[in-house]
Amino acid sequence: MFIEVLEKVRNSSPLVHCITNYVTVNDVANILLACGGAPIMADTVEEVEDITSICTGLVLNIGTLNGRTIDSMMKAGKKANSLDHPVILDPVGAGASPLRTQTTFDLLENLKFSVIRGNISEIMTIAKGSGTTRGVDADLRDLVSADNLDEAVAFAKDLSGKTGSVIAITGAIDIVASADRAYVIHNGHPMMGRITGTGCMLTALIGAYVSANRGQVLESAAAAVCLMGLAGELAHEKTILQGGGTSTFRMHLIDAVSNLDGKSLEEEARYELR
Amino acid sequence: MFIEVLEKVRNSSPLVHCITNYVTVNDVANILLACGGAPIMADTVEEVEDITSICTGLVLNIGTLNGRTIDSMMKAGKKANSLDHPVILDPVGAGASPLRTQTTFDLLENLKFSVIRGNISEIMTIAKGSGTTRGVDADLRDLVSADNLDEAVAFAKDLSGKTGSVIAITGAIDIVASADRAYVIHNGHPMMGRITGTGCMLTALIGAYVSANRGQVLESAAAAVCLMGLAGELAHEKTILQGGGTSTFRMHLIDAVSNLDGKSLEEEARYELR
Amino acid sequence: MFIEVLEKVRNSSPLVHCITNYVTVNDVANILLACGGAPIMADTVEEVEDITSICTGLVLNIGTLNGRTIDSMMKAGKKANSLDHPVILDPVGAGASPLRTQTTFDLLENLKFSVIRGNISEIMTIAKGSGTTRGVDADLRDLVSADNLDEAVAFAKDLSGKTGSVIAITGAIDIVASADRAYVIHNGHPMMGRITGTGCMLTALIGAYVSANRGQVLESAAAAVCLMGLAGELAHEKTILQGGGTSTFRMHLIDAVSNLDGKSLEEEARYELR
Repeated sequence: MFIEVLEKVRNSSPLVHCITNYVTVNDVANILLACGGAPIMADTVEEVEDITSICTGLVLNIGTLNGRTIDSMMKAGKKANSLDHPVILDPVGAGASPLRTQTTFDLLENLKFSVIRGNISEIMTIAKGSGTTRGVDADLRDLVSADNLDEAVAFAKDLSGKTGSVIAITGAIDIVASADRAYVIHNGHPMMGRITGTGCMLTALIGAYVSANRGQVLESAAAAVCLMGLAGELAHEKTILQGGGTSTFRMHLIDAVSNLDGKSLEEEARYELR
Repeated sequence: MFIEVLEKVRNSSPLVHCITNYVTVNDVANILLACGGAPIMADTVEEVEDITSICTGLVLNIGTLNGRTIDSMMKAGKKANSLDHPVILDPVGAGASPLRTQTTFDLLENLKFSVIRGNISEIMTIAKGSGTTRGVDADLRDLVSADNLDEAVAFAKDLSGKTGSVIAITGAIDIVASADRAYVIHNGHPMMGRITGTGCMLTALIGAYVSANRGQVLESAAAAVCLMGLAGELAHEKTILQGGGTSTFRMHLIDAVSNLDGKSLEEEARYELR
Repeated sequence: MFIEVLEKVRNSSPLVHCITNYVTVNDVANILLACGGAPIMADTVEEVEDITSICTGLVLNIGTLNGRTIDSMMKAGKKANSLDHPVILDPVGAGASPLRTQTTFDLLENLKFSVIRGNISEIMTIAKGSGTTRGVDADLRDLVSADNLDEAVAFAKDLSGKTGSVIAITGAIDIVASADRAYVIHNGHPMMGRITGTGCMLTALIGAYVSANRGQVLESAAAAVCLMGLAGELAHEKTILQGGGTSTFRMHLIDAVSNLDGKSLEEEARYELR
């Protein structure tokens, strides 16, 4: 089924409006193009409604927040919600500062998100704000592992129910969950953590995948997570063969997203449904 | 003649002040260095006049506009005009939002540009603002092709006459026109559209080329367009040989600009004069 | 001794808060990860104190200053000083505009820096502001060379004494000096000047190295400068072998930082103590 999901992205070339951080914005634009979509970056409050109106989806990433972009995120998000465009949240660093945590809560209170993607720490910060208490035990704080996987899956489903959003928790093991169904995904490579932007790029990929596959939010978000993980595996192989380092890896990662076909994605995706 | 144009860039190393978007700013800086020039990025209203005064040219790119940068563009542009430095405009997304369209019109009304570079849709938005009516037929809206080339060339020349700027329309076929003379350029590769920043990089290249070749605006802008297209062709060849994807292509594109010599540019440039 | 310095970075993974320019910010984040550290970019005045508190060091880079970031630098710097975190200054373009020069002086007056890194022209601008008069002769203005090396070393030591900061002057020959001791470093390659960001990346590397090696500011800053220079040499070799250009070089440079081990750094570092 991932074949169709990927091909819909390639064939419909979803235009994704990103209000994102300036650290990884170039990678985000390039991964959107690589996957078959197209990016528009615009964060000025005067134009975000106009720009989001000509797009098919919106990605909000709080990596380098400021007062100006917070207003823009809110305004663009409301417009996208009113147009029924998918809106994706990447709460980068939620929990690391009161500004990021409070902004995340404000966004969650005022906007409806199709998907929220973060690492376990960021997602647990969200859970606290949404009144979710399940799964906030200390052993989940840093890492989803085989040992706490059941707990993590239950936590993700519970949070999805509370927020009405698909929850994507990414790390060594990835979980993509709706209220009653979760993909546990085993693709990926640790080297993905040695470059900046893999999280931001993945969130943008999810934006393109969900925009091009309306009505299949869970499946298309899971496909994007598998694609990114698989790209990481392929990039690692090529990097090692060439004796390369982290920058070579980054190049091969984006290359893999641009070259992978649906058949390979279908065959190489390693996930289980819970 | 392109040999001399290229070598003047390499020998004089023009310092180009860029007020540009944060999506592709790193690529823009690197392409300026690759071609033999040097970049300074500065967009704060307090210093843009000082910075532009120590440069030889100015590039204004509206890709991620905000109120702060609009003021800076205006102020830097007026200073550069008063110093008789070439000023180049890249009206990214003109037509996509009222803010971008109106800002483009304001810049055109207040500043004198040596060259305006955009895709056909952006340039047609400019034409409407400048009172140009010729060539705004629907068949030109999306694509310059063999079928409408005569019309497109006439449109570009007409707009150049109205604005007093060399007009560079880039796409599958590129047109670089003054009021009475046009280069129709056939270099390039479709893969250039699969990465972000080829347009922004080309605009910066034009800035370096025009700055280093005063009195030859049309020829040096055309040389820069041929160089970028040729770099795209070479990058595509290398990428395919290596089984690479879009990120490998991006690397080889900038590499080619850094490695190409004037003789190759002269021999491989494919253009006709109309 | 550089072995231990490098390994401490790899083993402690220092988290470095960067308030930096948007031109090279992605490279800065990637070089921090490549060397074994980790980056956080945050420049909003509301959160800079919170962010810097969870880090081990702070890097201030004035490459694309604006009013908003100047306040943030001051606030973050004061907080980092109060927490006894190392703070590193990269006065990009000091001397190129009154805004940059004055901001540099303001930062120097209000903050204590562990290391200041710049090219000779930027460092000489600082010297003027700090009342240093030695060594500001014209022959030093553009280049540290074998001919004026004694003078340059004396100048750097003098400025270190005046400012209380280790002074790193980088160029064809690098000098890293405290008030009474200087490393004169001969690693590096001219191609490093043909990409944007080598200076910014080096400053961030110094931030990671100094953060992970408290009490060894001079030695760890010198180790970072040797590492960057050595990475430039290795990257140049690989680039030439592949017939690559400046973008290939950039990739290999970051790769080398990610792959180099302490033993190679120790063996290949070429420096003398003065």
